[in-house]
Amino acid sequence: MIPRYSRPEMARIWEPENRFRIWFEIEAHACDAQAELGVIPKEAAKAVWERGKWEIERIDAIERETKHDVIAFLTNLAEYVGPEARFVHQGMTSSDVLDTCLAVQMKQASELLLADLDALLAALKRRALEHKMTPTIGRSHGIHAEPTTFGVKLAGHYAAFDRARQRLLAARDEIATCAISGAVGTFANIDPAVEAHVAKKLGLKVEPVSTQVIPRDRHAMFFAVLGVIASSIENLSTEIRHLQRSEVREAEEYFSPGQKGSSAMPHKRNPVLSENLTGLARIVRAAVTPALENVTLWHERDIAHSSVERVFGPDATIALDFALARLTGMIDKLIVYPEAMQANLDRYTGLVHSQRVLLALTQAGLSREDAYQAVQRNAMKVWLEGKDFLTELMADPSVSAKISKAALAECFDLGYHFKHVDTIFRRVFGG
Amino acid sequence: MIPRYSRPEMARIWEPENRFRIWFEIEAHACDAQAELGVIPKEAAKAVWERGKWEIERIDAIERETKHDVIAFLTNLAEYVGPEARFVHQGMTSSDVLDTCLAVQMKQASELLLADLDALLAALKRRALEHKMTPTIGRSHGIHAEPTTFGVKLAGHYAAFDRARQRLLAARDEIATCAISGAVGTFANIDPAVEAHVAKKLGLKVEPVSTQVIPRDRHAMFFAVLGVIASSIENLSTEIRHLQRSEVREAEEYFSPGQKGSSAMPHKRNPVLSENLTGLARIVRAAVTPALENVTLWHERDIAHSSVERVFGPDATIALDFALARLTGMIDKLIVYPEAMQANLDRYTGLVHSQRVLLALTQAGLSREDAYQAVQRNAMKVWLEGKDFLTELMADPSVSAKISKAALAECFDLGYHFKHVDTIFRRVFGG
Amino acid sequence: MIPRYSRPEMARIWEPENRFRIWFEIEAHACDAQAELGVIPKEAAKAVWERGKWEIERIDAIERETKHDVIAFLTNLAEYVGPEARFVHQGMTSSDVLDTCLAVQMKQASELLLADLDALLAALKRRALEHKMTPTIGRSHGIHAEPTTFGVKLAGHYAAFDRARQRLLAARDEIATCAISGAVGTFANIDPAVEAHVAKKLGLKVEPVSTQVIPRDRHAMFFAVLGVIASSIENLSTEIRHLQRSEVREAEEYFSPGQKGSSAMPHKRNPVLSENLTGLARIVRAAVTPALENVTLWHERDIAHSSVERVFGPDATIALDFALARLTGMIDKLIVYPEAMQANLDRYTGLVHSQRVLLALTQAGLSREDAYQAVQRNAMKVWLEGKDFLTELMADPSVSAKISKAALAECFDLGYHFKHVDTIFRRVFGG
Amino acid sequence: MIPRYSRPEMARIWEPENRFRIWFEIEAHACDAQAELGVIPKEAAKAVWERGKWEIERIDAIERETKHDVIAFLTNLAEYVGPEARFVHQGMTSSDVLDTCLAVQMKQASELLLADLDALLAALKRRALEHKMTPTIGRSHGIHAEPTTFGVKLAGHYAAFDRARQRLLAARDEIATCAISGAVGTFANIDPAVEAHVAKKLGLKVEPVSTQVIPRDRHAMFFAVLGVIASSIENLSTEIRHLQRSEVREAEEYFSPGQKGSSAMPHKRNPVLSENLTGLARIVRAAVTPALENVTLWHERDIAHSSVERVFGPDATIALDFALARLTGMIDKLIVYPEAMQANLDRYTGLVHSQRVLLALTQAGLSREDAYQAVQRNAMKVWLEGKDFLTELMADPSVSAKISKAALAECFDLGYHFKHVDTIFRRVFGG
Repeated sequence: MIPRYSRPEMARIWEPENRFRIWFEIEAHACDAQAELGVIPKEAAKAVWERGKWEIERIDAIERETKHDVIAFLTNLAEYVGPEARFVHQGMTSSDVLDTCLAVQMKQASELLLADLDALLAALKRRALEHKMTPTIGRSHGIHAEPTTFGVKLAGHYAAFDRARQRLLAARDEIATCAISGAVGTFANIDPAVEAHVAKKLGLKVEPVSTQVIPRDRHAMFFAVLGVIASSIENLSTEIRHLQRSEVREAEEYFSPGQKGSSAMPHKRNPVLSENLTGLARIVRAAVTPALENVTLWHERDIAHSSVERVFGPDATIALDFALARLTGMIDKLIVYPEAMQANLDRYTGLVHSQRVLLALTQAGLSREDAYQAVQRNAMKVWLEGKDFLTELMADPSVSAKISKAALAECFDLGYHFKHVDTIFRRVFGG
Repeated sequence: MIPRYSRPEMARIWEPENRFRIWFEIEAHACDAQAELGVIPKEAAKAVWERGKWEIERIDAIERETKHDVIAFLTNLAEYVGPEARFVHQGMTSSDVLDTCLAVQMKQASELLLADLDALLAALKRRALEHKMTPTIGRSHGIHAEPTTFGVKLAGHYAAFDRARQRLLAARDEIATCAISGAVGTFANIDPAVEAHVAKKLGLKVEPVSTQVIPRDRHAMFFAVLGVIASSIENLSTEIRHLQRSEVREAEEYFSPGQKGSSAMPHKRNPVLSENLTGLARIVRAAVTPALENVTLWHERDIAHSSVERVFGPDATIALDFALARLTGMIDKLIVYPEAMQANLDRYTGLVHSQRVLLALTQAGLSREDAYQAVQRNAMKVWLEGKDFLTELMADPSVSAKISKAALAECFDLGYHFKHVDTIFRRVFGG
Repeated sequence: MIPRYSRPEMARIWEPENRFRIWFEIEAHACDAQAELGVIPKEAAKAVWERGKWEIERIDAIERETKHDVIAFLTNLAEYVGPEARFVHQGMTSSDVLDTCLAVQMKQASELLLADLDALLAALKRRALEHKMTPTIGRSHGIHAEPTTFGVKLAGHYAAFDRARQRLLAARDEIATCAISGAVGTFANIDPAVEAHVAKKLGLKVEPVSTQVIPRDRHAMFFAVLGVIASSIENLSTEIRHLQRSEVREAEEYFSPGQKGSSAMPHKRNPVLSENLTGLARIVRAAVTPALENVTLWHERDIAHSSVERVFGPDATIALDFALARLTGMIDKLIVYPEAMQANLDRYTGLVHSQRVLLALTQAGLSREDAYQAVQRNAMKVWLEGKDFLTELMADPSVSAKISKAALAECFDLGYHFKHVDTIFRRVFGG
Repeated sequence: MIPRYSRPEMARIWEPENRFRIWFEIEAHACDAQAELGVIPKEAAKAVWERGKWEIERIDAIERETKHDVIAFLTNLAEYVGPEARFVHQGMTSSDVLDTCLAVQMKQASELLLADLDALLAALKRRALEHKMTPTIGRSHGIHAEPTTFGVKLAGHYAAFDRARQRLLAARDEIATCAISGAVGTFANIDPAVEAHVAKKLGLKVEPVSTQVIPRDRHAMFFAVLGVIASSIENLSTEIRHLQRSEVREAEEYFSPGQKGSSAMPHKRNPVLSENLTGLARIVRAAVTPALENVTLWHERDIAHSSVERVFGPDATIALDFALARLTGMIDKLIVYPEAMQANLDRYTGLVHSQRVLLALTQAGLSREDAYQAVQRNAMKVWLEGKDFLTELMADPSVSAKISKAALAECFDLGYHFKHVDTIFRRVFGG
């Protein structure tokens, strides 16, 4: 991922330092288990831990010759460990190291993403509580519908990211398996106890059947979950973009003093963060299809999946980490304009109460069809001619015959719409 | 989905009969709850259950005029229910009906798919146990590696579909929510108790925040899980395609007596089922990206997601149901050729034991590098010149200096590779 | 594709009647060529044309037994043609018939889509000319930027669909090839002259190398082009959705008298057509990835691509045909509100002229940086406090020191922005 | 793109040096045109060319403050150019610079990719001619079908990449447009003559309607074409992977002396390049869907597309460049084993001639159905029991009654299949 969309902590997971460190731990823990089984000398295992070192440039140099990264690493490791190095990697295959390492990296990435989600959830909760009762117009199809509160909007997004969190937990657990099973996964040359030991030490579960590789449906599921989370980010970002558009202006991204909106139009304050999040969501989602295609391997394994993972393993997790953090900051500092929300709510003079009038008319004995026509007839005068809805209704004999003016006026009470906000908040935030 | 890839039980879920039946139940259960709350007369709720009927053609006729399917249904329902029909759908919006119905349909579809998976798992288990100890060559990169058993291959696929089952269970539970919350999800005109009642009756959970619609990240997750399952299908199908190719012929799809393989070449028996499954996997996966794009809605809702769901709701579930059933039948009747497996295993006269020799040499004191070179040197004579591996090794002084002929010969024992098959089977099938 | 999104003319292309008709023509033309070459008797070719008939149900019945559609068709054809039927299909393989037929169907589909595009282009041109000089605010990032005209907006979309037309022409020509080359494409049992004859008769080009099948990169390109066109549809639809939202209301989809917007809120007029087009775009695009995956075939061919094409061949072309027609109708009847456009344009009292002021200040000798700050300082008062932009500028000494009030006022002339509209229209519509 | 899959020449196109160089040229050429129009002093334009310089670190520093890359560049440029810098960028917007620059970069990338394709085509042609008459078994569904030549296989792939070249030419021309049209594309503050001049100087065409940005359907088409080319790469790579598998071994990737195939199994020579190409194809294709989603912009523009292009502009072109070069090298050095091809061809003792026998029987007067059954009956004995096809046919009375032994034997002539290889080669390579 390009630096522009990277944060150091997530990027570090995918850097050679971390990868070789994990490789070393896998090999060294495996040596311990092998020593415990009596397959290799205990001193050898000890030597590995004590003298085990490596140097990235040296590994690169060896790899250029051997064209094989794990052999290059082992060769360099042997240069430090000395003769005991011949006991390292016994009965193992490169994939045992590579796939278990990838599992550790994806687990580490998951932990960061979970922390990102926690921060986002906290920001959303804070802003939702702050605006729990801030009236705003609810819109379906971009058209004014009925009143809601800005807090309810945010609570809905909170709930979505709470689901995201649950899914990521499951995906993390699915991905966190260890495979040390040898050439085609039969443990011919290595005891399953080695795998069990390494798994335990690295906080992984044992992969039940690894045919040299960890099966790629696990990875596909992981990237699919990232894709769904990315889509929820786009959903919230799109809401902000809408709220900031010139004709709505109910909320705005924070605009720092030095920032310039447009080289040509100095007055402009653009929702560039949320637009950027829309693009980042596409970037994260781009990993889903290749990951699905990666599931199919030839027989016990081929290496077609590898390049995809080398690129999208880092790219998808780094971009998502960046996006979640950006979104959190954006929500945290979002400038909200309750007056503008109220003004938009009042824009069509009471039309938002049309359904309540419809219900009142039905309850007063009008057939649903007649009530609907009466309401639509008067609503259209508001919509098209800018008339006042309550006035029109009161003047309509087919309405006034069924319902008193006082009762009609009561239908225009905004508070009526918010009586269950508490219920919704309790569902989302508990308590 | 075209009839060619449809099975009636799954198709039925998506047909108007089932949809309208669910709509009716939602409305009728809602009436019960409303009556219980005293919002509508108990007789009205009773009347709905007693006289509630509808006719598809009539609904279609009304929809052609109103261009609104739920209104068309309610109008037709009212024609049967009579005056009490005005109490139906009170405080509700079309989406309350549509989205809850979709949840029920996806839950029903999930149940069928779970049953499909159970049947597939049973078939895989049966064949895996049957061939638990059938030797076959394990292949990485399409190249002979080390021996495994055909049962271990199948056990790996069993484990993958067992994971598929777990994911589908989670996806089903995520999708199975009920929303009856009115215009923009504020319950302004309907008590949350109605939603709770309908949810309970339909076996759903209550949707915490429905902004008129059930949030689409749930559906995205559902389709993503179908996509991952489809990829596992492609993985197993590709294995079968490979095993059936002329040069391998270790297994073959069952070929019925009347069947014709090729209009031009009468001798041909093609793996057309597994090839077809590869295509079906692509079809199911095609729903994933649109479902991810569907997550973003404008404000409280728009209708952009609807057409996608009308098409891919049925298409993805029907194609997956068909594919799972086809795969089950294919595995069930798969013709396995153990002799051919053994013949392929013996093809490169002992080369499959190269790693064991490598290990023996290392344990006998050779450095890893020297051992690797000794093995590779002799292996290449087998690979390129067709020599016998054991003979070559015995004739190589750098090898014979370290290891006796008897010990070398022992390295060529096939049983050595299968000593942990029990462990693998226990992990997968328990017991 | 479900009937809801199908139009009969396009659907017909994919129905059995059309397919078997094309199969027959391929076989009959091939017989003519074979007769001409002396390979089969001329009477046989004549008999095929004269007595050639088939019956869909009968073919289906045979296929249920043989599990092979082309053999089923040929068997049924033979029942009508009689003994001379043994000369039919000589040296050919099923794929010769299937792939050439698919080419004809895709060509037919392309012709309909080209006609759809022509109709859309005509509607866009008409409305663009009608609103060539209708002022409207141009928006970047959803924020008011500078004036443009509604005609220029539409001209841009016209240009996009004109490009779509060019791409579809190219894709049609790429897809329109004929393959009659026998088992693995070597013409072992059939002369290339047969292929040349059939190609000519069906308006196709000869496929240079068909390895039993027409290579699938052609089809992938075709579906990719459909996907790009679908995206252009989504782009225009999104514009309409924005213009119709309650706070903008510069344009509205036509709303027929009987139509109902919402079962709960009778006043609502929703942009349901353009929202639907957004969903349809996703459906068409869903075919792109499977089509790309279809390019890879095993050796000379496998059948994995077939199911994908059976589903997405019809689905993508039918959905796109429907979407283009719907879009054309929508543009054709679109209700445009020039007064609302003007009102929105005037919303931020002159802010749209900020860049022109910036330029004037630079030309008057201010550094770009200073000019930018002067303009932004005053623009922010308009944006945040609702001040009048011209008044503020005139009152700012650092501005008035550089530029006279008269010159400033001149910067606020709307016509200034439209002086090159003619140029743009000439580029797009010529003349 | 990670260095592992990058080649310097393509990477350089996307590096800051190249980008700023293009930005500078756009600005400087624009100044020339503005000077020619008399809008700015000729000396100013001259000063820009003469003193125009910039420094990447300085630009980065300014951008960190202004959060706007074009303003940062212009500010740094002004530091070198001096007071005349105020005439730079007049009437332009950032997008004029960014989008025109992207067009230049994509054009440059296209030129490299076209050269890559030329090299690949040359390699394919050379190997195709070399193996024009090398017999090999054609396979459909992975099952032996009829003989073809290895040259014909390669000629088919040549034709596919020749189509790729045509598509890329078209995509390059589509993408190569220049937009210098100001804030919302109306040329309010800049004469269209400036755009025409810059376009000419940079080898671009003028964008007919740029609404601040160049419309993204052009970019979508570009990435879609890259995706189709990637799929053709996967197709050829899959062929090689199949040919190299242990049971087939008709061809092998070149294996350099120092290279190691497996850390555990020293004898292994794996088709790792072609497996890697399969993965790279997925990476390139991953750009297609985001590019299609990028087409939809809000009104005159939003910035959602930008991050996607920052990532996939480089990634897709760099990965494709790398993949094409790797594929070219792989084809160039591919080790072909004609004897193995012949051995595989002979594997099923004459079964490959079954269709020819079928035809001979039909021509001898047997009905198609009877002939089919006779051939299938005897073919199955070969297939299942390993019998010799010709012997079995001669011994079958229903066959020998119709056709002499000599005539039967003639059906087994291999050369018969290759009589039209010249025709195919002429179609592909001309001459």
